[in-house]
Amino acid sequence: MTDKKRLTTKFIRADTYRIARAVRFLLERGSIIRLKRLLSRFHPADTADVLEHLDDDEMHEVFNLLDRESAPDVLEEVEDRDQATLAEGLSDEFLASLVEEMASDDATDLIQLLSPERAGRVLDLIEPHDQAELKRLLVFAPQTAGAIMAAEFAAVVEDALVAEAIEAVRGMADELEDIHYVYVVDNEKRLRGVLPLHKLLLSPPGTPVSSIMITDVVTVPPELDQEEVALLAQRYDLERIPVVDTTGTLLGRITVTDIVDVVSEEVEEDLSRLAGIAEEEMGERSVTRISRLRLPWLVVGLGGGLASAFLISRFQTSLEELIILVFFVPVITNMGGNVGIQSSAIAIRGLATGEISASHMLPRLWTELRVGVLNGLATGLLLAVLAGFWQGSRIALVLGLSMLTVHMVATCTGTFVPMLLKRMGFDPALAAGPFITTMNDVFDLFVYLGIASLFMAHWRS
Amino acid sequence: MTDKKRLTTKFIRADTYRIARAVRFLLERGSIIRLKRLLSRFHPADTADVLEHLDDDEMHEVFNLLDRESAPDVLEEVEDRDQATLAEGLSDEFLASLVEEMASDDATDLIQLLSPERAGRVLDLIEPHDQAELKRLLVFAPQTAGAIMAAEFAAVVEDALVAEAIEAVRGMADELEDIHYVYVVDNEKRLRGVLPLHKLLLSPPGTPVSSIMITDVVTVPPELDQEEVALLAQRYDLERIPVVDTTGTLLGRITVTDIVDVVSEEVEEDLSRLAGIAEEEMGERSVTRISRLRLPWLVVGLGGGLASAFLISRFQTSLEELIILVFFVPVITNMGGNVGIQSSAIAIRGLATGEISASHMLPRLWTELRVGVLNGLATGLLLAVLAGFWQGSRIALVLGLSMLTVHMVATCTGTFVPMLLKRMGFDPALAAGPFITTMNDVFDLFVYLGIASLFMAHWRS
Repeated sequence: MTDKKRLTTKFIRADTYRIARAVRFLLERGSIIRLKRLLSRFHPADTADVLEHLDDDEMHEVFNLLDRESAPDVLEEVEDRDQATLAEGLSDEFLASLVEEMASDDATDLIQLLSPERAGRVLDLIEPHDQAELKRLLVFAPQTAGAIMAAEFAAVVEDALVAEAIEAVRGMADELEDIHYVYVVDNEKRLRGVLPLHKLLLSPPGTPVSSIMITDVVTVPPELDQEEVALLAQRYDLERIPVVDTTGTLLGRITVTDIVDVVSEEVEEDLSRLAGIAEEEMGERSVTRISRLRLPWLVVGLGGGLASAFLISRFQTSLEELIILVFFVPVITNMGGNVGIQSSAIAIRGLATGEISASHMLPRLWTELRVGVLNGLATGLLLAVLAGFWQGSRIALVLGLSMLTVHMVATCTGTFVPMLLKRMGFDPALAAGPFITTMNDVFDLFVYLGIASLFMAHWRS
Repeated sequence: MTDKKRLTTKFIRADTYRIARAVRFLLERGSIIRLKRLLSRFHPADTADVLEHLDDDEMHEVFNLLDRESAPDVLEEVEDRDQATLAEGLSDEFLASLVEEMASDDATDLIQLLSPERAGRVLDLIEPHDQAELKRLLVFAPQTAGAIMAAEFAAVVEDALVAEAIEAVRGMADELEDIHYVYVVDNEKRLRGVLPLHKLLLSPPGTPVSSIMITDVVTVPPELDQEEVALLAQRYDLERIPVVDTTGTLLGRITVTDIVDVVSEEVEEDLSRLAGIAEEEMGERSVTRISRLRLPWLVVGLGGGLASAFLISRFQTSLEELIILVFFVPVITNMGGNVGIQSSAIAIRGLATGEISASHMLPRLWTELRVGVLNGLATGLLLAVLAGFWQGSRIALVLGLSMLTVHMVATCTGTFVPMLLKRMGFDPALAAGPFITTMNDVFDLFVYLGIASLFMAHWRS
């Protein structure tokens, strides 16, 4: 979807509530003609947004009012969950006709939302050529280059002339909304080069394409993780990335608008892990479903809290003897948490952008440890002075030492855990999630109460 | 920079350490010819990456070895901090020649890193046409559409024919590495439409451009925040966004690769605020600078911790009477923190994507409150049962009630604060940062110890 599409009525997302209300009002009044006229003025992305604000029945009704041309575009744009809901209400035949109109990457996404039986039935109704293409695309694992690529592209063989390349563009112009490159392949469909359209435009029709094509092209294999694809695109400012298999055969191409979506998706993923929420929650409106999605993370946190409680109970005698120790429990756990999340955030982001390499752990740990010592001394001293004035020098000593230790440990674990997770093939962002941060709490408490008990034993003797 | 550029030696970022070491080795040995040969095989983005891994002196030396053609490209690619360092070591004349070769948006970014006096001197050395263009661009505030747009584009007047549009493309082909659209303007340079290159390619030379141009184009004003531009691009899958002023005059265009950068930048911003780190820290290698960047956030956290400490001290009598209350302090603060961050993360992300509107606070708060009640009941009950078995039914009652209250408060504040910040024009992500989370801790403790004290007074009577 690009500039070419009608954008007569654009509205920002904040307006969606108001417009969804208007749509609902027209629906209830049965003003179908007015409603159709209203919908015809929307960009498919806007219509999709309105659909997402309706309940399931209304969504079906409104979707059925869309004209044949915009229905597939709108279906492409709605969120997965609503796509599945909409698909449920459609006949196999209608769904198959919509799938045929969709871009191949969006079509495979939709088919993957269906039950295997239904997917099979719908695929069988699609005309053989498109069906074969979709089946080829369906084998790629989600979130890989193969899954986000589109199989439609303009291509010519390497001994073609500019005039033939122009004909290839003409052949694809109906199917593709925007063509920026023509791919040049050999007789075995192996990628040989890329022709930007402006080169075609500026060269005489009789020019051999091989003399003007770019041969030095960044390609990716279909198995590559989409996050890696996005990093490559960002690093080299690529607008199109051809996907080729091990033999060099051109399978499809990834557009930069897909890359923008990948970057956003990865953000949501990281944020979800950091905050202990499920990605599915974004856009979820049912209170019980939200509650159920959040509960597991909270129960994990509760378990950690109880571990802390148990640990503290082991130090009951020390605490009863010196109740002021209790006052500073939040100071220690707070600081440990804050220090750990600073180090983790830097590691997570650095690993995501490639700035930090998981195979170079020691230099990074050494940097963090030194930062930990510096800031541990600074905050430890500050805390010792303040607490000393308030509660005397004994607690000041315990607090200062604990603060330094907590800093050193938190900077190192905050760095080590994401790097370790990355090495083990997990998402480093998990390191900043509720589980690890809760474990850190337990450890910080152990340091603090342990140091206090040692000193108290010493003071008693 | 696109596919067209040499990409002979591509390496992933993880290799940068190794290559930086090789570069340093050649530099120390004085093998300048071999070093030049090595550098000539790198993509500018890769060279920039290597530079960032060298110390300042080495960076200058290596930069001076680059050929005239790749030096501006490399300078475009290095991080701001290193760009400033590199610029310091160059003569005004050389810097001006580099700036002339850079894309206008990158050139203005670089000039803004210089001191006002130096910027003036460098600008004066640039040839008048480019100088005027840069001065026009320099007035736009950072992080707006005007700041990220490039002023170079191919344009024709509306009564032109396809052949003339092709000539416009030819005129820009040297300056722009990739041309996908020709902009159609009237005699006052007001934007009238957009011509995708494939339409030029498929239309006879005598066709009037006005008959094939797209007239329904999404444009943005130069003052629009870059985040809003990115949202528009994402929503409508735009690859180029023309920037026009209030009179409709075409000022420049934003490319989708800039949008990818914006999305990444905004992620770093959000993550920084969430984790309490400074954005400048990404890529920072000096331990004392890292330490100094992190310390202010930690001191804020320390202040909050001390507020908690003071609060607990006010409940000293209750705690001495019932020491087991202490055990559960981390359970309560932990849970409050986890619940709050879940709600905040959803609100922050929703506000960023436009899914949640800051002007519709009440429905969102109502949803969150109900989620809080559900999960408060669930975890409160679980905690009460477990703690009851361990320490008796009295503490169980206090804990269950506190848990429910903490949930209800944390879901609401976690939602309210980001929305309020957004309305007041601040970044909602600040709500998940150390300051607000620390304040929540104090409040959670107050709820817990307050409820406990009330019950204890009741039990005593």
